[in-house]
Amino acid sequence: MNLNEMIKCARGEKQADLLLTNASIINVFSGEIIPGSIAVANGYIAGFGSYPAKKVVDMKGRFVAPGFIDAHVHIESSMSCPTEFARCVLPHGTTTVAADPHEIANVLGAEGIGYMIDSSKDQPVNIYFTLPSCVPATDMETSGAKLGADDLLPFMNNSRIIALAEMMNFPGVIYRDNEVLRKIEGMKKQRKPVDGHAPGLTGRDLHAYISAGISSDHECTTEKEAKEKLNAGMHIMIREGTGAKNLKNLLPIINRQTARRLMWCTDDRHPHDIIKEGHIDFIVRSAIRMGLDPLTAIQMATINTAEYFGLNNVGAIGPGRQADLVVFSDIKNPVIEEVYFRGNLAAREGKILPEIKKPAPLNIRPSMNVNIDKIDFSIPAVSKQARVIEIIPHQLITGQSLIKVAVSGNLAVSDIKRDILKIAVVERHKGTGNTAVGFVRGFDLKPLASSVAHDSHNIIIVGTNDEDMKTALEAVFKMGGGLAAACNEEIRAELPLPIAGLMSLQPVKTIKEKLDNLIDISREFGSSLNDPFMTLSFLALPVIPELKITDKGLVDVAKFKIVPLFEK
Amino acid sequence: MNLNEMIKCARGEKQADLLLTNASIINVFSGEIIPGSIAVANGYIAGFGSYPAKKVVDMKGRFVAPGFIDAHVHIESSMSCPTEFARCVLPHGTTTVAADPHEIANVLGAEGIGYMIDSSKDQPVNIYFTLPSCVPATDMETSGAKLGADDLLPFMNNSRIIALAEMMNFPGVIYRDNEVLRKIEGMKKQRKPVDGHAPGLTGRDLHAYISAGISSDHECTTEKEAKEKLNAGMHIMIREGTGAKNLKNLLPIINRQTARRLMWCTDDRHPHDIIKEGHIDFIVRSAIRMGLDPLTAIQMATINTAEYFGLNNVGAIGPGRQADLVVFSDIKNPVIEEVYFRGNLAAREGKILPEIKKPAPLNIRPSMNVNIDKIDFSIPAVSKQARVIEIIPHQLITGQSLIKVAVSGNLAVSDIKRDILKIAVVERHKGTGNTAVGFVRGFDLKPLASSVAHDSHNIIIVGTNDEDMKTALEAVFKMGGGLAAACNEEIRAELPLPIAGLMSLQPVKTIKEKLDNLIDISREFGSSLNDPFMTLSFLALPVIPELKITDKGLVDVAKFKIVPLFEK
Repeated sequence: MNLNEMIKCARGEKQADLLLTNASIINVFSGEIIPGSIAVANGYIAGFGSYPAKKVVDMKGRFVAPGFIDAHVHIESSMSCPTEFARCVLPHGTTTVAADPHEIANVLGAEGIGYMIDSSKDQPVNIYFTLPSCVPATDMETSGAKLGADDLLPFMNNSRIIALAEMMNFPGVIYRDNEVLRKIEGMKKQRKPVDGHAPGLTGRDLHAYISAGISSDHECTTEKEAKEKLNAGMHIMIREGTGAKNLKNLLPIINRQTARRLMWCTDDRHPHDIIKEGHIDFIVRSAIRMGLDPLTAIQMATINTAEYFGLNNVGAIGPGRQADLVVFSDIKNPVIEEVYFRGNLAAREGKILPEIKKPAPLNIRPSMNVNIDKIDFSIPAVSKQARVIEIIPHQLITGQSLIKVAVSGNLAVSDIKRDILKIAVVERHKGTGNTAVGFVRGFDLKPLASSVAHDSHNIIIVGTNDEDMKTALEAVFKMGGGLAAACNEEIRAELPLPIAGLMSLQPVKTIKEKLDNLIDISREFGSSLNDPFMTLSFLALPVIPELKITDKGLVDVAKFKIVPLFEK
Repeated sequence: MNLNEMIKCARGEKQADLLLTNASIINVFSGEIIPGSIAVANGYIAGFGSYPAKKVVDMKGRFVAPGFIDAHVHIESSMSCPTEFARCVLPHGTTTVAADPHEIANVLGAEGIGYMIDSSKDQPVNIYFTLPSCVPATDMETSGAKLGADDLLPFMNNSRIIALAEMMNFPGVIYRDNEVLRKIEGMKKQRKPVDGHAPGLTGRDLHAYISAGISSDHECTTEKEAKEKLNAGMHIMIREGTGAKNLKNLLPIINRQTARRLMWCTDDRHPHDIIKEGHIDFIVRSAIRMGLDPLTAIQMATINTAEYFGLNNVGAIGPGRQADLVVFSDIKNPVIEEVYFRGNLAAREGKILPEIKKPAPLNIRPSMNVNIDKIDFSIPAVSKQARVIEIIPHQLITGQSLIKVAVSGNLAVSDIKRDILKIAVVERHKGTGNTAVGFVRGFDLKPLASSVAHDSHNIIIVGTNDEDMKTALEAVFKMGGGLAAACNEEIRAELPLPIAGLMSLQPVKTIKEKLDNLIDISREFGSSLNDPFMTLSFLALPVIPELKITDKGLVDVAKFKIVPLFEK
């Protein structure tokens, strides 16, 4: 809205559009609950108190708080496009997110970032972005793009880009890689923060990382770690996602002095959890249940995050800010009853209102570049001693073993009895034909394939025999990306993710149902893993110990290098 | 320092320059006092804990806090140039200021702002600026410059300009003056805050003012006013200056929830008070004495202000921040014993160290443009009933009376017995010859003249007879600006302020002595006013009720217009 109009409405020279009366207003500036009215005009808060208004809604004493903010989220983890993500989190009270399009950037580079920015306009959630700082994560894999400082600089003054995203490359920082420093300096020049990502970093290395200008971290897992980072000047994003759940461990660091530098984030939250538990609202409720003062929990979901990112338009109920509001009845268990977005009632009792229109989907180029016919999963048996990736249930880290694998003819093959399956990664960005094949223990099932494979998102396939693996691969290819389960050369279940092989245009609920079906099939296939697709998606991430596989081969993460499959 | 070097030092790859051991570190992030060591390299904090260092200094358990920040100050009010101001406040622990060059801007416009920026480089205090938003304050006076949005825009992205300065023109905001809105929008585009100045503004007008994007106020005088502004989203600067003292009244608003949005400022603090009482340190001590938690008082002098202005380089002891530190022994009465600026010991026991060099003074064009010979203080007696400005001791507001003035021949003249003196304002910027003459009651003394006369800083003269007034005027003119006292056509005391007629290159101590002498003479002249020059300096400010005088004539402030001297 233009300033002239804003001021006119705040003065009450024009009728407000809406007056919410009899509200218990959560004032995050003063930390008080103040009974009163809120006037809304043109989607913004005009003021408190009595205003002439076209429409008056009695809040009947219910609590009205600012809409919640997710300080760090990968929309891709919901497997839905920005439109469907917004429609899914809005009823939970999330009205603003700082989204890091790290996954799509690894597939489609600057084009992917541009797609996310464009396709998240005019949504019923304010979708801001942090700019992916580490694409690709390593050079031991083939990603769809490489984003250097020169590629990122043109994005930095974009008003929807609010920070440099998680700087995972902490060796690049502390050993002063020129490209890394240029990215940091570029964003600091824009007076925007640089988000960190430095699990376990401590002492002088932590000081060095912070001295470079990195001002937050969302990877703390212990009170001690979080406290050290906070004391050295970092803002701490407390994460409660699907994979990583840090709320319980970090709760003790929250007190009257530290709270202002703390905020909530989900990072990666899968469709099941959003639908079943909620989003930032779930974290707020959980924290209160664990004993946190409700006002503090709400400040960590609102004003703290807005201040950290310099977003003066959101995060509070005050004149000139967007009228993004959540309504609930119980301060000790804030279940979101209504959500206003830019002054319009947009969701009620967990459902987005039908009048909230979907913007038309945008086109994006296909991301599958594989010559299926040439892919060969056979493994010549160079020796019998092969490196095997050992799955550790409920963890992202893996073990590794040297095992005598089964041989048939002159080929090494899966050994179903011992649960040693083949695993393959097929490069899918540049048509290089790169295919690495190895062995994994712990899946205990029939072929599955996925184009969601952090961070380069090549196609990863696990299975008992080459034919079924090929069938699953082909299914993923044909969908333009997605997840598939195959058996006896037949597709048993699939989830198409045609946007960069990562996201669907379907509602999150539909995605969840298809995922449920895939997991049911995987149970039928014999797996006892919680979510074998999630396990699979982290097996190509060569920064998490101990043995991983990329399109370039097996990676010994401790040695940070490619190692041969066979040991003599 | 370049980032590469910074990171290297923080990692301890290079020896630190200095290690302060055995310190009780005031950690403003966590609100704790943490015993430990602080490593300093190249003027920046490298880290905490053990570091190899060239020099080790044992703090013997004393407290080490971040250097203090003044959130809003007019350096001109110290009557000293930036160099001497810095040398005066540094020993009190002020290491950063947000200076508003409003006074010099009214005299020399953009050139004056440029002079302040340039002449405050390389000082032992970080001198940042807020950009004067209201030059001139009104059009009922002749100022040296007029600064429109187009004049200000080129300054806005300057890294030493950190905000738009106090937006005094609140009618301009709420009635949406285009130039005013352009100034605000320009600064917001730079992601920098817009400081407010809105004494007594309340309700919808306050909401309108805030909705325009104005994010602070330093003019609150009551708890109620401050609370209303804070609740509506403003950051509150609590002011304790020479004229305005708000600490005691505003102390009740400070609590665990509100403190983070509060900070200290001096606004206008005269040489006497800085030398006798101190600067921000004085406010911190006073607040603690009145019962405020010391950590909170220090946060309000450090991190809160740094965060408000987005200054991540100061305001805390943490890796990558400037090593601006204050040292004291008593947490309940922090008398500053030592001050480090950029890692160097710069002041000890109230005195700047001799090795802290003064940068060479810069030239600035003279600001006195008056044809003295043509100035005429005679008042043709149009009628006997004249408007008289009534001084109210200890207040900036004046009264007004209609009084039969003394007449000699056909001229109205001073009437010493009734203490009705002549007061004149002589335009000194453009050589217009504009001279307004009127009457004032309450001075009770012989002629004084001053080129410090808010906000346009024309020459203001009060006196018993035209000859002595002329002598005083001439003295001010010859000094290129300043204060003077004359009697029997002889100069009895003077203080040259050659920089824009506002500031001296002399040390603040010398200025204070000369001011003392001027005040002693004014006592001898018969005045019982505390500081008649200060009283004089506000008589030309046509925004403070009730009757004021500018070079254009008498101003009835309530009517906001020029009124005639005589009433028939």
